[in-house]
Amino acid sequence: MAEVSFGLWMKERQAHFERVAEEGIPGEKEFPEGLHEAMRWSILGGGKRVRPLLCYAASALTDAEPASADAAALALECIHSYSLVHDDLPCMDNDMMRHGKASTHAKFGFAEAVLAGDALQAEAFEVLASGAVPAERVPGLVKLLAFAAGSRGMCGGQAVDLALTGTGGAGVGLPELRRLHSMKTGALIRAAVLMGAACGRAELDTPALREDLSAYGAAIGLAFQVIDDILDVTGDTATLGKTAGKDAEEEKATYVSLLGLEGARALAREARDEAEAALSRIEGLPQYAGKTLRLREIADFVVSRDR
Amino acid sequence: MAEVSFGLWMKERQAHFERVAEEGIPGEKEFPEGLHEAMRWSILGGGKRVRPLLCYAASALTDAEPASADAAALALECIHSYSLVHDDLPCMDNDMMRHGKASTHAKFGFAEAVLAGDALQAEAFEVLASGAVPAERVPGLVKLLAFAAGSRGMCGGQAVDLALTGTGGAGVGLPELRRLHSMKTGALIRAAVLMGAACGRAELDTPALREDLSAYGAAIGLAFQVIDDILDVTGDTATLGKTAGKDAEEEKATYVSLLGLEGARALAREARDEAEAALSRIEGLPQYAGKTLRLREIADFVVSRDR
Repeated sequence: MAEVSFGLWMKERQAHFERVAEEGIPGEKEFPEGLHEAMRWSILGGGKRVRPLLCYAASALTDAEPASADAAALALECIHSYSLVHDDLPCMDNDMMRHGKASTHAKFGFAEAVLAGDALQAEAFEVLASGAVPAERVPGLVKLLAFAAGSRGMCGGQAVDLALTGTGGAGVGLPELRRLHSMKTGALIRAAVLMGAACGRAELDTPALREDLSAYGAAIGLAFQVIDDILDVTGDTATLGKTAGKDAEEEKATYVSLLGLEGARALAREARDEAEAALSRIEGLPQYAGKTLRLREIADFVVSRDR
Repeated sequence: MAEVSFGLWMKERQAHFERVAEEGIPGEKEFPEGLHEAMRWSILGGGKRVRPLLCYAASALTDAEPASADAAALALECIHSYSLVHDDLPCMDNDMMRHGKASTHAKFGFAEAVLAGDALQAEAFEVLASGAVPAERVPGLVKLLAFAAGSRGMCGGQAVDLALTGTGGAGVGLPELRRLHSMKTGALIRAAVLMGAACGRAELDTPALREDLSAYGAAIGLAFQVIDDILDVTGDTATLGKTAGKDAEEEKATYVSLLGLEGARALAREARDEAEAALSRIEGLPQYAGKTLRLREIADFVVSRDR
């Protein structure tokens, strides 16, 4: 059976995920309506859905049930969306625009945005424990997601990022930047592939697979961030759907400020190669043969994207 | 064996919980140090630990292992502490003082306070899934906590509270106030007793027990909030450890503004009686006989407290 093209697969998965999120997040007519409206504004109708795509693609490796992969994908995107809502707050990055529309605080106010983010984080864990995922898989998924979201992952990376912003990049070298982004962006991207695999059959979710997926996720996370930094310089606000040129304005150390545009592009390609090497190791094991195509295509997509 | 007095039991449990939290939350020397310092400032060394006390007391009903009850108690207090950190933010209640010391944003700044709260929420779920609780209990505990913390519980109640603040109490009657507080304060207090019971032996955590515990928790939650409103009027800032007189200043509808001081006190006693009736139903079942003393004492404590 011929596989559909990556473009078609991605569009189908994105549309499928939109329905999962539409139905999985409390409706705007449910009390308290204002909060649910703000939560839905924050998660629906925007974004590339990179974490759900990674989760779906990895879930194929362990023959996961669709309902489990949907729950894991939604939980991941709840965390990602809440982090954008809080990052956009005036006391953080102060951004009025996100995914080509008003950011949550710009539309609903500061307090409501804090609460919509908080409620989306709780929603993530409720989705995992709501019954769609077999009970024996839940502890592992909760652990992966909570670790990635917490002080040793995403929140920790954001705290370090804030502490370093406005110093004109002083004292920030490549090792510091990589550590920061491996927490801020990388942790949740790594969790996306590991959670996808953890949704499926336990006997297929082996330590060896987890190690290679972790390497793949780390490389993808790095590539993603490097490209983000490049697009902040080369992209325009309309295409990006968020404010371009912010890094230089805020005197942030980025992969571009440290390596230059060409150096950053080389690092992104290097990361993609690392990701592909990890997939080749997985592909070499008979039980996963023929199951890594979408993960490989996502790696290409992350490096070649223009928004 | 004679039981120790409630006062001694409470002091011992509070001191025990302090050690559990000290060891359970990442250390100040662990990277990123600043964020971990802010998280520890937010949760350690303050508060009455009402939710942990309720969790411990309820866990005795189902013969829970101490390690499981500790994890549930810590998870509950992580959620409660994060909610205080975010509630104290300038865009919310704007309070500079909490538990007799500087609130988290007053000490660490707005952005760090948002992140410390966010990371404490993630920490709550990580604690539940970290292995201290037997795997088969984790999904139920995560579900209870996430529901109580989310848009249909604590966050939802806070959103409604904010929407009603500053209207001079216009349009807010007793039903609206009870609904608001059953979400904002009640949901997590109810979760505390249900989680305590859910930590133990599944055959003892029956639907009948859960129904009575839920009634007890709802009544305790109401009593707690009514007394909070009374203390805001009759207490002083030094004793409370937080700013007194804020409700009137903000023209908030409270149980006191709607019922008067005496009416509010009567409602608190009524709620305590409801809580005791629920405990009597539990006590009437042989498998729980002699196990409700601490829950009864906590009900008295909540109503008679002066801070």
